[in-house]
Amino acid sequence: VPPVALDAFLDGARAALGAARVITDPDVVGPHATDWTGRWQGRPPAVLRPGSVADVAAVVVLARRHRIGLVPQGGNTGLVAGATPLGGEVVVDLRRLDALGPVDVAAAQVTVGAGATLAAVQIHVGSAGLAVGVDLGARDSATIGGMVATNAGGLHVVRHWTMRAQVLGVAAVLGRGDVVDLNPTGLVKDNTGYDLAGLLCGSEGTLGIITSVRLRLVPVPAERAAVLLGFASVADAVDALPRLRSVPGAQAIELVLADGVRLVAAHIDRRLPLDPLPDALVLLEVAGDRDPLGAVQAALDQLGSSVVATAAATEPAALAALWRWREAHPDAAAARGLVHKADVTVPLGGLAAFVAEVPAAVEAVAPGATTLVYGHLGDGNLHVNVIGPAADDSRAVDVVLELVLAQGGSVSAEHGVGRAKVAWMARQRGPAAVAAMRAVKGALDPDGILNPGAVLA
Amino acid sequence: VPPVALDAFLDGARAALGAARVITDPDVVGPHATDWTGRWQGRPPAVLRPGSVADVAAVVVLARRHRIGLVPQGGNTGLVAGATPLGGEVVVDLRRLDALGPVDVAAAQVTVGAGATLAAVQIHVGSAGLAVGVDLGARDSATIGGMVATNAGGLHVVRHWTMRAQVLGVAAVLGRGDVVDLNPTGLVKDNTGYDLAGLLCGSEGTLGIITSVRLRLVPVPAERAAVLLGFASVADAVDALPRLRSVPGAQAIELVLADGVRLVAAHIDRRLPLDPLPDALVLLEVAGDRDPLGAVQAALDQLGSSVVATAAATEPAALAALWRWREAHPDAAAARGLVHKADVTVPLGGLAAFVAEVPAAVEAVAPGATTLVYGHLGDGNLHVNVIGPAADDSRAVDVVLELVLAQGGSVSAEHGVGRAKVAWMARQRGPAAVAAMRAVKGALDPDGILNPGAVLA
Repeated sequence: VPPVALDAFLDGARAALGAARVITDPDVVGPHATDWTGRWQGRPPAVLRPGSVADVAAVVVLARRHRIGLVPQGGNTGLVAGATPLGGEVVVDLRRLDALGPVDVAAAQVTVGAGATLAAVQIHVGSAGLAVGVDLGARDSATIGGMVATNAGGLHVVRHWTMRAQVLGVAAVLGRGDVVDLNPTGLVKDNTGYDLAGLLCGSEGTLGIITSVRLRLVPVPAERAAVLLGFASVADAVDALPRLRSVPGAQAIELVLADGVRLVAAHIDRRLPLDPLPDALVLLEVAGDRDPLGAVQAALDQLGSSVVATAAATEPAALAALWRWREAHPDAAAARGLVHKADVTVPLGGLAAFVAEVPAAVEAVAPGATTLVYGHLGDGNLHVNVIGPAADDSRAVDVVLELVLAQGGSVSAEHGVGRAKVAWMARQRGPAAVAAMRAVKGALDPDGILNPGAVLA
Repeated sequence: VPPVALDAFLDGARAALGAARVITDPDVVGPHATDWTGRWQGRPPAVLRPGSVADVAAVVVLARRHRIGLVPQGGNTGLVAGATPLGGEVVVDLRRLDALGPVDVAAAQVTVGAGATLAAVQIHVGSAGLAVGVDLGARDSATIGGMVATNAGGLHVVRHWTMRAQVLGVAAVLGRGDVVDLNPTGLVKDNTGYDLAGLLCGSEGTLGIITSVRLRLVPVPAERAAVLLGFASVADAVDALPRLRSVPGAQAIELVLADGVRLVAAHIDRRLPLDPLPDALVLLEVAGDRDPLGAVQAALDQLGSSVVATAAATEPAALAALWRWREAHPDAAAARGLVHKADVTVPLGGLAAFVAEVPAAVEAVAPGATTLVYGHLGDGNLHVNVIGPAADDSRAVDVVLELVLAQGGSVSAEHGVGRAKVAWMARQRGPAAVAAMRAVKGALDPDGILNPGAVLA
């Protein structure tokens, strides 16, 4: 970017937003230059803090005039450099757009600003007995706009699906600076033209800057019940999936393996949950107003002697203790050293074979490495953690992703493409789909100013 | 279209598909020239019958070379001239693409050709205890490709949502003739780039010709239970919606009004279902494996004295008898004369006011007309039928659509835009959204050969 163009852009931004909303102080800009991993380092000359849709539109018009790349940011909790200005782009921090609209109880919907954190929305709608269908550990910093832009997933996808399924409407500023307000009244059925809101969801800020979202809400269930089921093999756990999925109110079907459970047991200093420890363990959680414990027990009866099981938990402390066997995996891994992560989906038909192949494939390129596999069995979404290789040695993750592609899987189940997975995405999706994406990008952002370098090269 | 270009195109199509698959016999072409309503009359010079994705791609490449418009057709059961070649386009009949892939029971998915009818798919997956989440009266002729292209809805949207929610992947030929095979393995979580499959869903054949679909399937519930609830007013019924929606297994929440029920009672010669007849009646249907009748009765207990109710039905004959009060509305209307139809969504907050305003608004432009309102309360989707005005007098429907726009509603809840609703769609969505749609259309179909005149003018 020629300095003169940047100066003219920043002068225009100061006139539009007020000088206080155009930040160039390196101490303030610094945290916006990298993402949650700290692995990629950008060089943004400034951070802008618009406070309204009109502000955002003004910024986009200015950016277009001066050919300045913009990187929209929310809570900046991403893991793939999706909001990291590696090319010297200007960051647009959307957290001031944090308005919380009235909860529409009859429709179970709410409109919130893109900058509202998930936690703020949860509290806001919780008073009406409602919740957002997607929940995440990063809820205190992750913003709704960012969650929509990245189509966030989480633990309850098997029940409520990903963020795209929670989105009824979106307001956004497109690449020409025009504002679209898509389905602001949250119509559940509206077959008038293309699903632009769904297209913006998951586009990672490359097609438009999302400014507010009309969300579908779900009832807060009165009760929860969970159990840890032990299977002789991953294949047996996959075979049980149709039955587990059809348990009324099933909201989580999570997989851990014996190796991982042993590592966690050592890390949190607890006895093994089942002894002898089965090869594959599935955490089934059911929620609802009508006897979720009964639903868990009915499922156990149907599964019969093919499973062993812990006692079912219904109280918060007991539920949390069961969940620790799943949720402590990342911490237990991190305690052993630097963790290389792959976040993948594998078709269920090949999932057991994939889990069996991964350790040997990693061992071949990273002798002595520790490999952990766990994840969201109900979605086929597995997290592969490898501890051992040096920070700049990506070979272990690369061989895992090669296995994923060979199985017809996804190299990014929920983290997105960002700047880190552009080449892998292109391999997975193929040239025709990438060409179509590029055409759509050109249509909605003809000057390429929205999050350049993300998703598409 | 210059005749010489058409002749060259048809010669090319004969070479690619075989002469028997290029039909110009007016008797065979005739039924493809109009849609289900018979109201619009097209003039297609030919109907092509491709048998493979490669055939479809060859046809698109030829059409592009010779600048021939193509109108994709499935079962041709549409109501808005969405597949009607009003501009002399060539029809592409996709019904030979009717392959039924193996049912993936573990994932609850199947891949089927675009030309497979819904009924054929229902039978195919039913043997595995699974079903398609969308069901329609036109199931014997409506094809999966058409249902995806129009984002079909139906009776169970409150439980399973519209067709877009059933679609995991799509194979399609885009406007340049390139074939995209989007998520063929049916990955539930895949955040690698734009949701092109979701974009094609509901695009009515204007962005690509869908050739096969990877569908999510739902379990067939073991039992059903239904009840007809009487409310003192539509407003009371809307107020009860959060409670009705949270009944476990609720799969239909349908609204009928006293006037309509009286008309139906006369038409089918039955006693009124409740006497005295309340102003607003809601058919609640619950399905599941765990005591749906108990769920209905729990809901009744919670609603308390605010409702009256029929006996709950669980046996097929009794269920069908209850459903007759809802499903016989179109027939009862048609028995009174030519029916003008509006298929709209109204935000729930304005739904009661809308229902109250419609009869007077219609009366003002069509004195003496009979107006019926009924529909899918759970989605805010209402069907307005007007009997009285002459066939070419659209004023009654026009005033209804004006009321819909004033309420922030949709002028086409499930029927789509086609060629009939292009101007209304543009008013509803506004210039910025229409410009964005036009840009997307230009990106994926740069020569404008795919279903020209549909969705966008």
